[in-house]
Amino acid sequence: MRAIDIIRKKRDGEELTSAEIDFFVRGSHSDAEWAPYQLSVLLMAVFLRGMTTREIAHLTHAMADSGKRLDLSDIPGPKVDKHSTGGVGDKTSLILGPLAAACGVVVPMISGRGLGHSGGTLDKLESIPGFRVGLSESEFRTALRNVKLGMIGQTQDIAPADKALYALRDVTSTVESIPLITASILSKKLAEGISGLVMDVKCGRGAFMKTREDARALADSLVRVGTANGLKMTALLTAMDAPLGRCVGNSLEVLESIEVLKGTSTSKDLTDLSVLLAARMVKLAGLASDDQDAEVRVRNALTSGAGLEVFRNCIEQQGGDPHVIDDPTRLPMATRSTQVRTDRTGFIDQIDAELVGIAAMRLGAGRNRAEDTIDHAVGIVICVKPGEKIRSGESLFEVRFNDEAKLAAATDLLQRAYTISESPPTEQRLILEEIA
Amino acid sequence: MRAIDIIRKKRDGEELTSAEIDFFVRGSHSDAEWAPYQLSVLLMAVFLRGMTTREIAHLTHAMADSGKRLDLSDIPGPKVDKHSTGGVGDKTSLILGPLAAACGVVVPMISGRGLGHSGGTLDKLESIPGFRVGLSESEFRTALRNVKLGMIGQTQDIAPADKALYALRDVTSTVESIPLITASILSKKLAEGISGLVMDVKCGRGAFMKTREDARALADSLVRVGTANGLKMTALLTAMDAPLGRCVGNSLEVLESIEVLKGTSTSKDLTDLSVLLAARMVKLAGLASDDQDAEVRVRNALTSGAGLEVFRNCIEQQGGDPHVIDDPTRLPMATRSTQVRTDRTGFIDQIDAELVGIAAMRLGAGRNRAEDTIDHAVGIVICVKPGEKIRSGESLFEVRFNDEAKLAAATDLLQRAYTISESPPTEQRLILEEIA
Repeated sequence: MRAIDIIRKKRDGEELTSAEIDFFVRGSHSDAEWAPYQLSVLLMAVFLRGMTTREIAHLTHAMADSGKRLDLSDIPGPKVDKHSTGGVGDKTSLILGPLAAACGVVVPMISGRGLGHSGGTLDKLESIPGFRVGLSESEFRTALRNVKLGMIGQTQDIAPADKALYALRDVTSTVESIPLITASILSKKLAEGISGLVMDVKCGRGAFMKTREDARALADSLVRVGTANGLKMTALLTAMDAPLGRCVGNSLEVLESIEVLKGTSTSKDLTDLSVLLAARMVKLAGLASDDQDAEVRVRNALTSGAGLEVFRNCIEQQGGDPHVIDDPTRLPMATRSTQVRTDRTGFIDQIDAELVGIAAMRLGAGRNRAEDTIDHAVGIVICVKPGEKIRSGESLFEVRFNDEAKLAAATDLLQRAYTISESPPTEQRLILEEIA
Repeated sequence: MRAIDIIRKKRDGEELTSAEIDFFVRGSHSDAEWAPYQLSVLLMAVFLRGMTTREIAHLTHAMADSGKRLDLSDIPGPKVDKHSTGGVGDKTSLILGPLAAACGVVVPMISGRGLGHSGGTLDKLESIPGFRVGLSESEFRTALRNVKLGMIGQTQDIAPADKALYALRDVTSTVESIPLITASILSKKLAEGISGLVMDVKCGRGAFMKTREDARALADSLVRVGTANGLKMTALLTAMDAPLGRCVGNSLEVLESIEVLKGTSTSKDLTDLSVLLAARMVKLAGLASDDQDAEVRVRNALTSGAGLEVFRNCIEQQGGDPHVIDDPTRLPMATRSTQVRTDRTGFIDQIDAELVGIAAMRLGAGRNRAEDTIDHAVGIVICVKPGEKIRSGESLFEVRFNDEAKLAAATDLLQRAYTISESPPTEQRLILEEIA
């Protein structure tokens, strides 16, 4: 078998065999017969020619098999996770993980870091003093046994083929390919040892997928390929035009998550989405008779405070300071703040999630490049959400900052990030579609 | 300017600017901001997305400018060359070069070596004892002044970007791209310092372009891009289903070329095509009033022996033994021969040029890989050409070989290389089309 023949085949739009895909995946992360310039060329051929579901399913399987796959069969309970394609202000993992665990789901969550305008669960968790996302496998297993919830980062031995291929895609403009995105996401999820996965595919200005068609195509691919690999799957298409909730920035998002779990948050969009995603996890786990039953169970875990207790235990289990739950001043908070006000009166029509995300990144909350360090304390509070009324002179955003040199770029972006209309805008749906 | 942005643009089917193409070409042969895995990905994007004539013209220009471009303005006379896309038994360069030079054209011919089933002009010339294809620039200029004909190989300083990109294309299945083939051919020809170029685009079983449509598309691209770069261009589409002439193999092809120049050859196809191509060179050089006038001049150079004298002088000028013209036994000839006979009576319908070319390669006349060494003395004589009659028991091919171990593979191929019909086949046209 030769790399150039496989490249030629895909170049000409043919379907690759499983053996050819195995050969490629092996070549991507070992000193095999594939040079980097051959790997990248195949990625471009896949980008432009596509792959069948059978090909993507096998690519996913081979990439998962390139490293360690957790076997969690000795830990009692159904294992189900959620994965989001990334958005702005999306801290649902910190809420639905505890809620699903409180309902009996074991949640072995392996998350990523923020990049560009999107935040990352690991960065948010690390704003909790002492919280360790780098658990060993045995610590992770202990967390899952004790708390039913573990939240860690990708280890070196999970899906090394994905790491190698992603690094190449990043520098060869071959990222935005549905087959390659599908295999990248699901190979890591397969390695978690789960039996079910709820996908939150974001769609809109602040999302990776800008259009409904693209988001639907990705969701469809994820459900088909996940199912082909033995996972119970459901995918929700959710709007990511405006930021989710009222806080963007790491410690601010932890704080907002705690408020949701306490029932004191006014962010209905964030609460509703977190509950819905957790309910789907409960359903896929086989712990509810139907969608409605699942949602009742999750709402109960929220109002009873059971979810909050799981989060407290999770923080403690992973070395973090559990007192942040009761005393938010223990979270790092920026020392200074300023208001972005409007000189118009009316209704907030739109808030551009991407611009808000970039503004937060400029403040230091996110990374422009993977090697950048971040400031967990800074961020943006959205004082008025789309559909709400605002008067001339009132604050639209509160900017929490530490470094004044970074402020102007952020406030400039925020000034351009909203539109105001004279009449209330039509309410935008948060849940656009479900594909299962 | 960043490689990934240029890749993204071409990936999405957009037209690259001249500055972007310059940046890519510079990156291909210098330690610039392009990694090999980025170069190869752009090649695949070009392969699948194509390029406009403007893009190909600039790519060609930039690749020519990546190295030395000969300035032949101090050598009197119009400079015109011919280039063929490669075939089996195609020794027209050895015939038309002398004929065009005899008519007053200066022919600065930079040729290649054989690879796969196709022969190469340099290998044929090197079968002449002493002949040096590696002239220095000043020796090449002297040859052009004295003989009006120089036949050399590509030097290291001609179009280094083409060398680098071709090496990558070869290992990434991105060879068969009309924009990339066009730029590769014409960048080297532009570096020759010519004002006109006759292209012989081969079409058929033994050619790189198997179909008329592909050959026409390449010819069309070559003419448009050459013209955009200031060359006078004409392209002939010629049939390469059967080998050209009666000899395949290096010294055998030199011998056949000498016979054509002497007027003693019975290979009408070879003679006619050589004369036609030489006439087009004369016409592009401005040395004839029209096609017919040009052809008369070339026929005169043939019958007068003027072309033969140029070839003799060319051989002498480049260090070869000019006595091979009068005494063919001075050419290396295989010590042994065998006949491939047929057991049927009828008319030769087809002879598969590709199989004959591979058979010659198996004997040692050609290279499977660029680093293989070749045997100039071996080859195949085609005793009966398509349309000619053959009787059961008669020889179809005479195989000249040195190494008996290589014989069986060659004769097996030759046994499968022909078809015989009961009635005379319709005559196949050699010149299919002309694009100017």
